[in-house]
This record gives sequence, structure tokens and C-alpha cells, in this order.
Amino acid sequence: MQAIIKPRAAVGLELADKPKPKAGPGDVLVKVSKTGICGTDRHIYEWDAWSSGRIKPPLIAGHEFVGIVEEVGVAVKSVKPGDRVSGEGHIGCGSCFCCRTGQSHICAKVDILGVDISGCFAEYVVLPETNIWKVDPAICDDQACLFDPFGNAMHTVMAQPISGRQLLITGCGTIGLMAIGIARVGGADRIIAVDPAPVKRELAKTMGADEVLEKADEATVKKLTDRDGADVLLEMSGHPHAIVGGLRCVRNGGDVSLLGIPADGEVPIPLAEQIIFKGLTIHGINGRRMFDTWYHCESFLRRHPDLIEPVISMRLPYHQFEKGIKAMQEGTACKVVLNWNDEA
Amino acid sequence: MQAIIKPRAAVGLELADKPKPKAGPGDVLVKVSKTGICGTDRHIYEWDAWSSGRIKPPLIAGHEFVGIVEEVGVAVKSVKPGDRVSGEGHIGCGSCFCCRTGQSHICAKVDILGVDISGCFAEYVVLPETNIWKVDPAICDDQACLFDPFGNAMHTVMAQPISGRQLLITGCGTIGLMAIGIARVGGADRIIAVDPAPVKRELAKTMGADEVLEKADEATVKKLTDRDGADVLLEMSGHPHAIVGGLRCVRNGGDVSLLGIPADGEVPIPLAEQIIFKGLTIHGINGRRMFDTWYHCESFLRRHPDLIEPVISMRLPYHQFEKGIKAMQEGTACKVVLNWNDEA
Amino acid sequence: MQAIIKPRAAVGLELADKPKPKAGPGDVLVKVSKTGICGTDRHIYEWDAWSSGRIKPPLIAGHEFVGIVEEVGVAVKSVKPGDRVSGEGHIGCGSCFCCRTGQSHICAKVDILGVDISGCFAEYVVLPETNIWKVDPAICDDQACLFDPFGNAMHTVMAQPISGRQLLITGCGTIGLMAIGIARVGGADRIIAVDPAPVKRELAKTMGADEVLEKADEATVKKLTDRDGADVLLEMSGHPHAIVGGLRCVRNGGDVSLLGIPADGEVPIPLAEQIIFKGLTIHGINGRRMFDTWYHCESFLRRHPDLIEPVISMRLPYHQFEKGIKAMQEGTACKVVLNWNDEA
Amino acid sequence: MQAIIKPRAAVGLELADKPKPKAGPGDVLVKVSKTGICGTDRHIYEWDAWSSGRIKPPLIAGHEFVGIVEEVGVAVKSVKPGDRVSGEGHIGCGSCFCCRTGQSHICAKVDILGVDISGCFAEYVVLPETNIWKVDPAICDDQACLFDPFGNAMHTVMAQPISGRQLLITGCGTIGLMAIGIARVGGADRIIAVDPAPVKRELAKTMGADEVLEKADEATVKKLTDRDGADVLLEMSGHPHAIVGGLRCVRNGGDVSLLGIPADGEVPIPLAEQIIFKGLTIHGINGRRMFDTWYHCESFLRRHPDLIEPVISMRLPYHQFEKGIKAMQEGTACKVVLNWNDEA
Repeated sequence: MQAIIKPRAAVGLELADKPKPKAGPGDVLVKVSKTGICGTDRHIYEWDAWSSGRIKPPLIAGHEFVGIVEEVGVAVKSVKPGDRVSGEGHIGCGSCFCCRTGQSHICAKVDILGVDISGCFAEYVVLPETNIWKVDPAICDDQACLFDPFGNAMHTVMAQPISGRQLLITGCGTIGLMAIGIARVGGADRIIAVDPAPVKRELAKTMGADEVLEKADEATVKKLTDRDGADVLLEMSGHPHAIVGGLRCVRNGGDVSLLGIPADGEVPIPLAEQIIFKGLTIHGINGRRMFDTWYHCESFLRRHPDLIEPVISMRLPYHQFEKGIKAMQEGTACKVVLNWNDEA
Repeated sequence: MQAIIKPRAAVGLELADKPKPKAGPGDVLVKVSKTGICGTDRHIYEWDAWSSGRIKPPLIAGHEFVGIVEEVGVAVKSVKPGDRVSGEGHIGCGSCFCCRTGQSHICAKVDILGVDISGCFAEYVVLPETNIWKVDPAICDDQACLFDPFGNAMHTVMAQPISGRQLLITGCGTIGLMAIGIARVGGADRIIAVDPAPVKRELAKTMGADEVLEKADEATVKKLTDRDGADVLLEMSGHPHAIVGGLRCVRNGGDVSLLGIPADGEVPIPLAEQIIFKGLTIHGINGRRMFDTWYHCESFLRRHPDLIEPVISMRLPYHQFEKGIKAMQEGTACKVVLNWNDEA
Repeated sequence: MQAIIKPRAAVGLELADKPKPKAGPGDVLVKVSKTGICGTDRHIYEWDAWSSGRIKPPLIAGHEFVGIVEEVGVAVKSVKPGDRVSGEGHIGCGSCFCCRTGQSHICAKVDILGVDISGCFAEYVVLPETNIWKVDPAICDDQACLFDPFGNAMHTVMAQPISGRQLLITGCGTIGLMAIGIARVGGADRIIAVDPAPVKRELAKTMGADEVLEKADEATVKKLTDRDGADVLLEMSGHPHAIVGGLRCVRNGGDVSLLGIPADGEVPIPLAEQIIFKGLTIHGINGRRMFDTWYHCESFLRRHPDLIEPVISMRLPYHQFEKGIKAMQEGTACKVVLNWNDEA
Repeated sequence: MQAIIKPRAAVGLELADKPKPKAGPGDVLVKVSKTGICGTDRHIYEWDAWSSGRIKPPLIAGHEFVGIVEEVGVAVKSVKPGDRVSGEGHIGCGSCFCCRTGQSHICAKVDILGVDISGCFAEYVVLPETNIWKVDPAICDDQACLFDPFGNAMHTVMAQPISGRQLLITGCGTIGLMAIGIARVGGADRIIAVDPAPVKRELAKTMGADEVLEKADEATVKKLTDRDGADVLLEMSGHPHAIVGGLRCVRNGGDVSLLGIPADGEVPIPLAEQIIFKGLTIHGINGRRMFDTWYHCESFLRRHPDLIEPVISMRLPYHQFEKGIKAMQEGTACKVVLNWNDEA
């Protein structure tokens, strides 16, 4: 089968011919229809510090997908060939404390699709039955292949109450933009979005932001909010200035959810002044809750099909994947969807 | 009346004669019986960066007390002369969002007794009725004058579930030690306490710690716990090494409550590795919840009168307060109680 | 001043001339602009079992209002003459456990405006400062005088998560209808509303219900929902059939909030089958959380001014109050607003 | 192998010879060491209305056990022959909303060991790997075979906060007694236990109750508590009088957890007066949370080995099971443990 692989420890991804995988007794073999390119895939392409430390080539990349079940293992009960499915790319060990108490998204021994094990940038992908998600017919393939990043946004937004609260969202990449849309239809009051790029600020307005700012400025945010600061900060950029600037914009007693990953190891945080005295609660966000977040995404996508469309900048046949990555690098593309169907 | 005051912007506190205060219509005048010396009082004595930036001399110091109601304002309904009372030293504005939603402990305009307004290191102190707490007869004066720091410990411990969980407590000063005792009788599983001072580690064992360590060492804590790290970190030291070392000791999905105040402005935090990827929740802790924390303290102190006694190192008549502060500076005293009764 | 009073222990309310009340030191005197007639007022008018057991005539009725501050007591700090205000009609004792832990809406010694003490169906009303709510200029008088029932609806909806969940709402009176609107803009997924009256079902659709039913029928609700039943039941009718029928429509693990008051003392509940085996959580709802619910209402009303308008059926000058009560009795009116302004 | 079975639709259980079961690819075959007799087993013995409606004979009874893994299916990864294990008897479907969001204990299609499928009253029992629990070496067999009822008690106690709160526990059978012990070491304040039988009240004191009463009397409980009633009611009896009497004893804003199963279908509940006006929260409790409750039990049993011993009244070789059931019927036995080891 055709697959997009990291062939060796160097910059780049390549198209290659790989053997079609087989489903074990508890597994599901999926014929891939569409996939999304994630920022993580771009890091793997660029072979940055993180990816060169974690990825063991050769490896099939990719973790955002939708497809059709082709074959199931003997022990599989809940899906059958022909079902349209997506899947959770975090594969927990199944037996640790986190896995047995509903937190397998943060299992310490997690294997991630397209990072630790063969991914979905291929004509076929295999996942354990427990990680398969049947897609509601009301949700089209272009949305369904993006459950993973949409779920990151949902998980971040729903990590604290947002109903009737005033939000600051720093970073308007794909996930930040989807978070704006989710918060908007999820009952948030005023939403202030921050991004240095004018095009992203424009998209932020499309998604439902009331105000857009170039940076997280304390005085401006306090003026735009009722309670001497935002009730909630959703940090989606990973930039130290946005993180610390964002904290300064939050009112006493507020909530902060951190999803954006700082590039460098450590971020100097004014702990006493900005977290302890203010009585903030900080939520570290990783992955998606299985499967609370997935059900939540399903509900929102069925009812609000416009929550994803604006962030899709490009649709390409899979063999043109490099064009998509270049566009992401140049900042001209937000989300890129690859088509793996024969007719593509 | 006699009072311990900060007379001018310089090191030291002095005994002085001050006019007896008057209760306004909504206030309560209390004849002070006993007071506790807090680390904050020591900072005010030493005139450090924080106190010289905030305190406006002359000021009567002190915020930990118990006493007898002497007089009440015309509008006061819930207490009467002769009642034995302590009081919450954080006086919220009463009309902001935090004050009107049960979070006046983090009111942005809070006035703190003995910091922003006249304190309780005096024969008499005045508080608004809303801040007065009637003391249960089963709780003796030496415990009752320490509701404030005991409440800090209670607030920190109860900021997340602790029942059946394995705890790491970094910093065994007065509040850290009381937190150990509270967690012990509150249903915690294994408690690991950390302090560089052998005498504090000894006290930690007295309070109920299962294990004591000189520092928060990841490998050791992971070995001592079941789930590849502690479920909960209670950070009571304010030391950057303890904070970051403590974070490394917490399992994925764990809780962290920060009470200790770092001396310097910023602490470099490995946000991605230790908070975001691990899905931690961080709780900034300040003051005591009014009055949830006070009721909780009352329940625990009535049933477990031994939760405070071991941390009281010294009992002095009030005019010997300087002896107490010196002992705190030398590290030979944990909590010092001052007696303001005539017979003292 | 003019007031609508219950003059004696018998059916009816009367217009009467009463002395203008005075504000005590902690009180606020309000010149009333508009008031809403509540179902409770109708019960008082009809002198039913509940009201004849609780009301001590003579009494000024009414608890839903907006007006302008005319005068404040000497101790009042947060409002001043000229401020436009509404107010919380549940006046807690201020010193019990509930009052001191943010639950004064369920204080066991609560005094309710227009029930236990002089109400707001008058040209002037007095409330303690702590119960006064300053109204945002963006919220018009007709909405502002209905914070009380809108707050009941908000409190009921927000007693459990509703985002992305499928709701069954039984009873489409004023509060049920407002609950539909709140749930709609608050992020609920499918909303199924139940009422025997066709006109109410029509209004339910206007407020945002996806489906309307004559009764809570288990088979129909299970067909209309994804998870073998509704995630949440909001019971607003008080009818035993709706309560038990509603319980049968809720999926295992769901939430139920009960606001509607059954007329008779006891309701036979299939506890084992419908609550225990199913692992339901039942929330008894009374009043509004002070002031969390009020802030929440403010946010929603500013952003969605259409959440109240459809339930106002009638606007009358205050002296025509009886016309409003008759219309409520005949079922031709939902909410009736009385105008107390001179120009009315 | 030897097994205790319900051979036909009639009163009684019998010892019989049954074929040794086989483990499927995802299953674990356990050689049973000890089992507990549950009230459910007694109902099955007595062939009451519930059991005759649900049980399809012939069936091996029993769901409380500990044993040694004999064999595992090919897909099993987390346990191996020789491991000492217990197991969760509620076997969820694995694919419904409840199962995929951490609530498989209330899966609507649950199969219960010894009720819907072959149970553990046998020399061997088979369970899916996902339901197996490895037992900590610090927990002896007599405790380990009772994780199921101990977990019911834990689940009920931990369904609401209990730390520092005053509890009323109605019904001092096995689970009620264990709940008293759990609440005691879990940080509860005053515990009031109710049971009509003097021997049970005596055991309740042994487990840590402060007060014991013959019935849930409102006046007495209000006198024994601080806040005009208990903060929490744990209902373990299923008796309508205890349920309604218990509700009357709870303060406004309190929590109620219902575990006891009323024998008859419906219980008349004063909904308005006791639940709605008081703002109570009612938790229906079924089974144990997988596996949060199991971890919690493990922590408590390791640290407090005395939490189970007092409720074990009888230890018998398995073939004398009928003697145990008789003792339960006569009220002379609380929990009966059966020994399946050869040496027994």
C-alpha cells in the first residue's frame, strides 16, 4: 500500500510502498478515506528537537483520519466491515491506574499513532477496537478526519465551566480557532482572541470572537471584561509571552487551561503574584478524554457543522502532502486535509 | 491599650500605648486573649521587600487571635458581649464578583488585619461582624488563636481529594506540619514529607508522615508510591527546588496545591513536560474559604485536639514577643503563642 | 403609597394605601418601576393550602421587581440613590451554616419578600444592601423585573452539565420556557419539551425546543435520544405523572433537577428501579444561588435579549393586577408585568 | 468441578458437579479460594420476586471471590497464572455511552456474575481480563473475597464529601457497618448509625459510630448534630421508614446516597418539603466505579485491616453453605465466608 513515511533520521517525509497491515484478534483494519495534517506531523517532517528525540524511523506518520472498516479481529464485537470510523490515536496500556480510572489519555506508557507506532498516513491503518470511534452519518468526512484536533479544542474548552464566562484565548491556530467556535456555541459570554497574525485574527472573528488583539495586554483585557480580568484563559500558542501575559489578564479565582507547548524547556512564571495570591486553577491539557470528549464533539458537530469548515485551508490528494506542509510552514494554511480515496 | 506596632519604615516592632479602638455600627470589639506569631509578622519585623512595599507605618501588627467580645455595634446580631471569638483577617470589599460568589478570600481589594489595617497584637481589636467566628467551647484558646494558619493548612489539603491518595508534602513549617496531621486523619493513604531540617522531619513523623525525606527526589518518591508518583503535591515551602522537584514527583493526572510563596519573582517551570503532557491540575491557595474552611477546622479540632499542640514551640507573655521572633529566626521555634490576659 | 395587599385570611388581593417604608442603617429603599406576577402571587390570591398556612395578613405581596434607589441607610456602601436595581427576595439569617457557606438561598430561617415580609407590589420596597442587585444598563426593565424567575430557570439548568447533552424539560410554564431558551444558548444538544397545552408547546418551539411532546413518554424519548434516554431531566411542572414519567425517560447515570412543586404532600417514586439501579443524581432546586446565578443571568440576558420577551404575555398598569391574575388562572397568560411608573 | 447452583425455578441452592469452564481469548480462568455470601445470594436461594423474575436456572451462583489465576486467554496481557486476583462482577457491554465514559457499573446491558452468567460459587470461575483485579499482598484472602460489598460501602460513602461532615447511616447490615468504618477513617465528623437490632447497633459502635439509634428520629438527630440536621444520609436499609425518616434528618443543602433497595415498587416521598425546598442532592448508588472504587478500597484495606474483620460472623467450608444462609436468615450472621481450598 502507499504510505507517507519518515524513512530515516533526517528532515522530510516520503511516499513509499509498505505492506498492508493485518488486524490482530482485538484489532480493526481501516481503509483510510481522509487524513488531517497536524502541527506534530510538521515537526516530524522538520525533524526538530522533540521529534528526533522520540521518533524511531522508519515510521508511517499521521494520526488524524476517517475511513471504512475493512476487516476486524475475531474478538471484535462493536464494529464490522463497512462501518465508517475514526479513532483515538492515544493507545493506553490498559492496565495502569490512569487507564483503569478513565484517564488513559494520559497513560504514562501511551503509544501514539504516527509517533510511537505506525500511523494513518497510508491506505490502511490498524487500531485496537477500544480506540475505534463510529462516525455519525450527519458528520461529513472532512469533519470526521479532524475529530482529533477538534477534540483537543473541546477538551481544553470544557476543562472548566465556560457558560456565561468571559474568555481569553491566546493563539489562533487550528485548535485555537476551533476552541473559539466551541466556546461560542457552548454558552461563553465575551470571547477575546489573541494572535499576532492579522489573517488569524480575521478567522477568529469568523469563528465567533467578540474582540481580537495582537497580544495579551492586561490593561486592554481588564477594560474589555467586567470582573477586572477574564474568567478563563485558554492558552493555545505555547509562547512564553502569551502564557505569562495571559495569566496577568485573568481575574482572581479564574481558570487557566494550557494546551500550547512551549518550544523551550522552561518558562519563568510569576507563581506568587499570578497564581498563588490570585487563587487560580491551572489545567494541563493533553489529548482527549476517552470518550467523553468524543461524544461531546459528536454532539457539537452534528448541531453546528460550521465549527470546522473555516479552518480547512487546503484539500489535496495524499501524494501532494508536501505542498500542504509547505503551506503550513509559510503560514498560508491552517488545516490541510489529504484525500486517500482512489478517485481523489 | 498596649499594642505591638511597626512604628516606622525600618526593621523591628515595638510595644506602644495606643487608644482603645471603637466598634462602628456593624463591628465587634474584641478583648484579645491570645495571639499567634505568623511568618508574615516576622517578615514585617524584618522589613523585607514585600513588607516594605505594602505596610504603611505606623500599624498594629498581628492577625491570629482569640478573645472575648467586649462590645458590639448597633447593627450586630449574631454575637454579643462575652462570646469567645476568633476572626477571619481577610476583609473583602463585599461587593465585587469574588465577594458575592463565596470567594471573598481572594477579593482583589481585600484588607488584611495587621497588614493593611490595625491588627490584633493589642489588648483590643475591631472586626466587622461578618468576619467574626464564634469558637466552640471544646476548642481551647491555644488552638483557637491559630485558626488562621490551621485554616491555611486545611484549605490547601482540601483543595483536591485526598482520601485514599498518596501525598507528597514539601516544607514542614507550621502550616506544612498541620497539613500532615489534617491529611492523616482526613483519610490520606501514604504521606511523604520533605524538609531539609532534621528537627522538622522529626515533627513531621509526630504529625503522621509515613516517610520523611531531605528533598523531593523523583526516583525515591516513585519507589515509595504505587502509581509511579504521588497523587497529590502540597507545596508549603516556596522554594523553587521544592516546587520543581515536587512537580517531577507527581504522577500523570495528579493534583498540586501551591501555598508556599517563592521569595523571588519568577520560578522557571518545565510547563510542557511536567504540567501539560502530564495533565496536572494546579491550585493556587490563598487564605481560607469563608467559612467552609472554618467549619472544617472546627470539626477537625473538636475531634482531634492533637492536630495543633505539637507545632506550638513557645508560649510567652505578649511583652516578650521579640524573644519569640528571635526563636523563629534561629529556627528553634515553630509556632509562638502570645498571651494577652492580665494574669499572663 | 399604593400597594397590592392580602388584607385578611381569605381569597383575593386588594389595592390599599400603606405608609411609605423606611430604610434601616443597612437597608436600601427602592422606588419600584415594574414587577412581575409569579405563580406564588396567584397562590396567595387564591388562598390555597400552602399560602393560608404560611402568610400572616395583612401583607404587601410580590417579590419580582426592578426600580430606582431612592434612599440608602448610613451603613450602605455599594449602591446610591439613582441606581437602577433589582433584588434577591430570599433574605437569609446571615449567621447559619448555609448562609456562611454560600447557600443562603436555602437558609432554614429565610424570610421571603412578599411571603414572610412586606413585598414589592407597592410604590416603594425596602431590602437589605446584601440583597440588592445593580442592573446592567443593557438589560431593559421588562427583563430586569424578571431576574427572579429567570434565575430559577438558570439555577435549574445549571445544576448539572448541559453542554452537548440531550435534555427533557417537563412543564412549559414561564420558568420551563425560559429554561428551554437558556439551555439552547447554553450549549445543550437536543431539547425535548413536554406540556399538555398546545399553546405552551408552540412557545417551547419558539424558545428553541427541537421536539415537543404532550407527555413524558419513555418509548418516544428513547427513540428521540441517542443514549437510550435523556441525559438530563429538568422537571418544572410539579405533576406526579411528569415526575415519574420523566424519571423513566432518563438514561442510566443521568441527572434530574426538580423545581416544580407537587401540590400534594407525597409522590410515589419507584426508587429502586428508576433512581438506585440507574445511578441517577437528583438535584432539589430552590431559589437562586447568591449571586452566582445572578451573574449568570446578567451574562445571558445581555447577550441574548430574546430569552425573556416571548414569555411576557401581558403588560398592565399595577392597578389592573387582577386582570393579570385572571388571565393566569384562565391559562391565557404566561408572565404578566405590572407597571408602577407614574406615567403608566 | 464442584459448584453451588440454582438447579431449577424453586427455593434452594444445591451442590452439583459442573464442567470446568474454559477461558476465551480475552478471559481469565481463576481457581477460587474464598467467596462471600451476599444478601443477593440469599434472595436467589429464597427465590423471591426479584430473583424469580431475573434468574434463568440452571445457574452457578455467587459474585464475591478471591482466587489464583489458573489460565489466561491468548489476548490477555495484564495477568498471568499464579496471580492472586478478585474481580468486578458487573460486566459491561463495553461499547455503550456509559461503558465508554467510565460508568460501566451502570451499563444498561450489564451482565452480573452469578445473576446473569455463571458465578463464582465453584472451584473455578471465568472473567474477562478487563474485570480482573490483582490483589495487593498486604490484603488477606478473607478481606480480598469481600472487595465487592466493601466496594459498595466505599462507593456510597465517597459519592459526596464526608470529610468533617456529620453523617447519618440508616441500616447496619454488612455494607452499612463497613460504611461506618470507612467514614470513620475517611475523616467524617460525628457518625450516627440507625438499626432496630441491638446486636447491629453494638457492631456499629465497634466500627466507629459515635451514636446509635433504633430509628431515624428527626428531633434526636437534630439535637445530636450542629447544623440542624445531618450533612449526609447514607441509606443502607431499603426500608421506606428509614428512607423518609432519614430525609427528614438531613439539613438543608445536604447530600443523600441511596444504596438500600426497597422491597416494594414505590416509596411515597415528600418531594417538595424534603428534597426541593431543602435543596438536597440525592445519589442513586449501584455497584462500584471501575476501578476508582477498587483502588480506593485497596488503599483503605492496606492501611486499616480492621475495616472488614468485625463483619465476618462465620467461616465455613463451601459444602456447608446452607448453614451460612440459615444463619443469615435467622439474623445471627452478618457476613459468611466460604472456603474453597482443598484443605478446607
